[in-house]
Amino acid sequence: MVKKIDHIGIAVHSIEKALPFYTENLNLTLLGIEEVESEKVKIAFLKIGESKIELLEPLTKESPIANFLEKRGEGIHHLALAVDSIQDRINEIKEKGIRMINDTPKTGAGGAMVAFMHPKSTGGVLFEYCEKKGMDKHD
Amino acid sequence: MVKKIDHIGIAVHSIEKALPFYTENLNLTLLGIEEVESEKVKIAFLKIGESKIELLEPLTKESPIANFLEKRGEGIHHLALAVDSIQDRINEIKEKGIRMINDTPKTGAGGAMVAFMHPKSTGGVLFEYCEKKGMDKHD
Repeated sequence: MVKKIDHIGIAVHSIEKALPFYTENLNLTLLGIEEVESEKVKIAFLKIGESKIELLEPLTKESPIANFLEKRGEGIHHLALAVDSIQDRINEIKEKGIRMINDTPKTGAGGAMVAFMHPKSTGGVLFEYCEKKGMDKHD
Repeated sequence: MVKKIDHIGIAVHSIEKALPFYTENLNLTLLGIEEVESEKVKIAFLKIGESKIELLEPLTKESPIANFLEKRGEGIHHLALAVDSIQDRINEIKEKGIRMINDTPKTGAGGAMVAFMHPKSTGGVLFEYCEKKGMDKHD
């Protein structure tokens, strides 16, 4: 079962340049900034109600975010859904015909287990299943 | 102050075709479907934690959603932030240099007062301020 929106990922060229809009204009609280080497991104986490906004800046040209920025420009990149028992959820939705980019979860930002659905299966939206193990330092 | 994500708007060609992914695959609850004549859209509301997903189907070729679908295809269209005192929030963020599409709020889906920011001011994201007056039939 999907519990809530865990976060919305927004692709930006530069966190340094993008951040003031979120902290000073929208008055959102910055929870932290971290680098996720496996995805080659730097991420800034901002609290919004029970959810978060994640600003995603590519660390290299090989980053999937660099690719997105080149094709589409800055904007909303993905929508992450908080679930329990992520492997069960992946198996369940695959049985219903949805194609996954990740058939098994991988470790994402904040130590969460994450798996992306293929946007061709979901009407153009890059959905992520996201399961937090124990304490999330950004919650 | 921004209280939470009110909803995420997702542009679709057909609610009838898009809906089963949300209700049967993600198991989200459908709260209702309504037409907003001023925006020339049909909207399906789905509950997700304290927020909602809104599926937006254009009613005519003149709908802003029809224009979005033609340019970008199906996908995430806008991100709505729940606020109180929407006119004060609009005035405040304009003073900070953010350009609004709507300088005064207009009536949107579910009877809410809504105003969009210009995505050129916000790093490519179409943000909406959204204030609920009294009971929201879709909450």
